[in-house]
Amino acid sequence: MNYSFAERTKNFKSSAVRDILSVIQQGNVISFAGGLPSEEHFPLEAVQSAYDKVFASGKSSLQYGLTEGYKPLREAIQTKMEQKGIRSTPDRILLTTGSQQTIDLFSRVMLSSGDVVLTEDPTYLSALQVFRSYGASVVAVSGDEYGMDPEELEEKLKTLQPKFVYIIPTFSNPNGKVWSVERRQTLLNLCYKYNVLVLEDDPYGDIQFHEGEEYPPVASFDQSHSHVLYTSTFSKSVVPALRTGWVTGPAEVLQMMTQAKQMADLHSSSIDQQALYYLMRDFDLNQHIQVLRKEYYKRMSIMRDYLHKLEPGLFTWKEPKGGMFIWVEGAKDLNTTLLLNKAVENGVAFVPGAPFYVDKPELNTFRLNFSHSTPENIELGMDRLVSVLLNPVTV
Amino acid sequence: MNYSFAERTKNFKSSAVRDILSVIQQGNVISFAGGLPSEEHFPLEAVQSAYDKVFASGKSSLQYGLTEGYKPLREAIQTKMEQKGIRSTPDRILLTTGSQQTIDLFSRVMLSSGDVVLTEDPTYLSALQVFRSYGASVVAVSGDEYGMDPEELEEKLKTLQPKFVYIIPTFSNPNGKVWSVERRQTLLNLCYKYNVLVLEDDPYGDIQFHEGEEYPPVASFDQSHSHVLYTSTFSKSVVPALRTGWVTGPAEVLQMMTQAKQMADLHSSSIDQQALYYLMRDFDLNQHIQVLRKEYYKRMSIMRDYLHKLEPGLFTWKEPKGGMFIWVEGAKDLNTTLLLNKAVENGVAFVPGAPFYVDKPELNTFRLNFSHSTPENIELGMDRLVSVLLNPVTV
Repeated sequence: MNYSFAERTKNFKSSAVRDILSVIQQGNVISFAGGLPSEEHFPLEAVQSAYDKVFASGKSSLQYGLTEGYKPLREAIQTKMEQKGIRSTPDRILLTTGSQQTIDLFSRVMLSSGDVVLTEDPTYLSALQVFRSYGASVVAVSGDEYGMDPEELEEKLKTLQPKFVYIIPTFSNPNGKVWSVERRQTLLNLCYKYNVLVLEDDPYGDIQFHEGEEYPPVASFDQSHSHVLYTSTFSKSVVPALRTGWVTGPAEVLQMMTQAKQMADLHSSSIDQQALYYLMRDFDLNQHIQVLRKEYYKRMSIMRDYLHKLEPGLFTWKEPKGGMFIWVEGAKDLNTTLLLNKAVENGVAFVPGAPFYVDKPELNTFRLNFSHSTPENIELGMDRLVSVLLNPVTV
Repeated sequence: MNYSFAERTKNFKSSAVRDILSVIQQGNVISFAGGLPSEEHFPLEAVQSAYDKVFASGKSSLQYGLTEGYKPLREAIQTKMEQKGIRSTPDRILLTTGSQQTIDLFSRVMLSSGDVVLTEDPTYLSALQVFRSYGASVVAVSGDEYGMDPEELEEKLKTLQPKFVYIIPTFSNPNGKVWSVERRQTLLNLCYKYNVLVLEDDPYGDIQFHEGEEYPPVASFDQSHSHVLYTSTFSKSVVPALRTGWVTGPAEVLQMMTQAKQMADLHSSSIDQQALYYLMRDFDLNQHIQVLRKEYYKRMSIMRDYLHKLEPGLFTWKEPKGGMFIWVEGAKDLNTTLLLNKAVENGVAFVPGAPFYVDKPELNTFRLNFSHSTPENIELGMDRLVSVLLNPVTV
């Protein structure tokens, strides 16, 4: 049979990263390609104990739940967000199947075909896919190490009248960038001025390497709770398998997203949500995050020290202040997609930067993940990678 | 701020049933309104033991999983479906966050604005909402107790060229109807003839009251695996909180749905999927389903016996052969939405039938759920209901 799919499927694309991951899951390749957290640090016993408490609470814990999600968990998240300066209420928190679902539900209620979304460039590629699957045009706003360029942003807000601006201002995927406080405030002020919403994606904000530095979420400046949708997840700071994220923001938008979620899946796993509630109540999550910060800093440092062995000038990169990635830019004529083949032959993998770009891919970039591999494997893999990089394939 | 939502949100509607449920969750109202399974029969110990096995398998059980879902569970589902005559492969099974997500993902890859979907009338109202949220026109095909009327179906397949036909052929929600084997085959043959897909929703098929009767899924006749998407769930036969359903069908359609799911939420909870795998491996699910069948039959019988007390002719209903619902039709001038107020005042609730209709609601119908209330509560609630029904409010 000849299947006649919906118009929107023409914008569907399988994730380039997932495709690469499936190729390199073979043999002895050490992969810096994915975006996985460290398995060794999953708090398995605490997670198991949390599930035990769910089951001890009786059979009603296994019944259908609310679309909005388990209320005690929403209350605990409210407290967690207050520590970041974001004021919310349980009624303005929607639990999702990870922040990916937040991006999807928000797009679903906001985007009609032909609408414009402004993003950083490069940015999270699965967000680009979602926006495009709803028929939106994604327009990149260029920037520097402090965030989007305010003049270009204002020009595009004014002329393109976008539906929203999507940003990952703290330890971005793919390039680890942190926006300055000033740029965060400027973005919000411009969005107030032009009445445009902000989707602030913050999966990595907890993984901060240096004490004392402050990276207040853009949402913390939105005192009227009118313009910023803030989303985060437990996937990076606790464990990914529970697939639990959340979003807070304007009540009217959240109500619409709740209706969309009711149609999408009624509600996410409520066993997992209940377990996360007990975990937040009884496990020292802040202490756990401290351990992750130290460990990820250590892993990043090993990777960084190997990168220092490269000829200066040929490769440029910035030491990240948190998150899970180092972003590397090679010489202008380097093609990292070709380089990947050679790297995999040498037993190491990364993700070429091209798929993270909105429309003009810079082929000489790549992303390295330092959270998933053990320190020993980072040494082994970086040793292999550096020898490949010292003899790069050029086009 | 004035939020400018996407065009499609004009078709959003909160579920009428959910709205009713929130009103009646007060006081001493015995509710036959929802579609919840019996909590007393949740296999809590077996579920807990299954989760223990997940955690015993180590930390990697908590890492990100595949979009398609945990493969050993897909293999176990393949075996379960073979017992129903449906042949599949793990590659042609996609795990979802309940069958609601199947309906959503399938609609997402198939429906463009203005497309037509054929359905029974009345049918599952949240499916109607999803189809309309993608801009589809839903067209009802009338039928009798054996299923859709073949002539009307053929006429509408020919003239309307629908994208698919949505059916719940076994113990339907809301009316408990079972299609005859002949009508199932006729539907599929007509869909072959006009090259139209079928979405077969089968959440209740396991809850069958009478041994020996055969209700083969439409998918079991689709030997070429080309035209039928079959979806079911563990929500009714195990527990709802795990939010795990599945879909099988044509490979090409499933690949497209997998891409849609990757954008929607990356994957569903893989802890829950792993737990379900151990549950299917080590727990006698068939025996458990036998217990549910007996218990639900008992509960239905109590409800039925009360309905027998009503004046014959004023109310008509059929004894269901399985599932969770009895569908009752009152005198032509009865308005069950008004009747509900009186019922709630008397401490009992049901769902008015109107929201389940495609476009011409029959206001004199209502749905009773017999799975969720204990036998004692069914007696108490039906006693109240019968006294209300004997003095119905007319308009």
